[in-house]
Amino acid sequence: MGFDVLSLSYNEQGLIPAIAQDVVSGEVLMMAWMNSEAVRRTLETGRVTYWSRSRAAFWVKGETSGHVQELVDLRFDCDMDCLLLHVKQTGPACHTNRRSCFYNSVRDGAVVELMGPVSDQG
Amino acid sequence: MGFDVLSLSYNEQGLIPAIAQDVVSGEVLMMAWMNSEAVRRTLETGRVTYWSRSRAAFWVKGETSGHVQELVDLRFDCDMDCLLLHVKQTGPACHTNRRSCFYNSVRDGAVVELMGPVSDQG
Repeated sequence: MGFDVLSLSYNEQGLIPAIAQDVVSGEVLMMAWMNSEAVRRTLETGRVTYWSRSRAAFWVKGETSGHVQELVDLRFDCDMDCLLLHVKQTGPACHTNRRSCFYNSVRDGAVVELMGPVSDQG
Repeated sequence: MGFDVLSLSYNEQGLIPAIAQDVVSGEVLMMAWMNSEAVRRTLETGRVTYWSRSRAAFWVKGETSGHVQELVDLRFDCDMDCLLLHVKQTGPACHTNRRSCFYNSVRDGAVVELMGPVSDQG
């Protein structure tokens, strides 16, 4: 079956959530949004490209920071309204310089920080 | 730092996306939505509870199917607008009886089905 980016379900803003997972470690790195053109560019270039809602612009992940995401596999869910990206992540995924954006956990009613910023070698 | 469910960022519908990841296999199982009360109930009961947008009702995962999700760890991201749940999944997570909702991949412009429905023992 051929794939058409327009066959996915986008929300009222024309966006679909995309979960990035490190293909090596299995770690969930981040969640961001794509519009249909971002999905098309990601598939075409192999460089993960989101839609930045705050900047209202395409966001080629790592274009500024160098912390690029190389697409290994793009999957979609049963409702076709969410993407799962398997990526090769260069450097930390999070803008706080942490490996993953999900670095805070709720344990016994308190927030526990699970990881700190990594060095430039990280 | 104490945790208040209202400190999370919810969208204009009062919802936050929640990614469920199998704590044993590392597989990303599904993405669904929670409101603040669903987050509170999930933390309090240890049974993952979403908000069903289609039914406009709380959705205790597995309440009908038996395919429950036991919460192991609840994390939130740097923007506090997305949750990552580490869960112990009983049976398949997907309503199609597949282990994960992300069973379709886009490869060379075509859709490839990566896994089929599992048996009741799955």
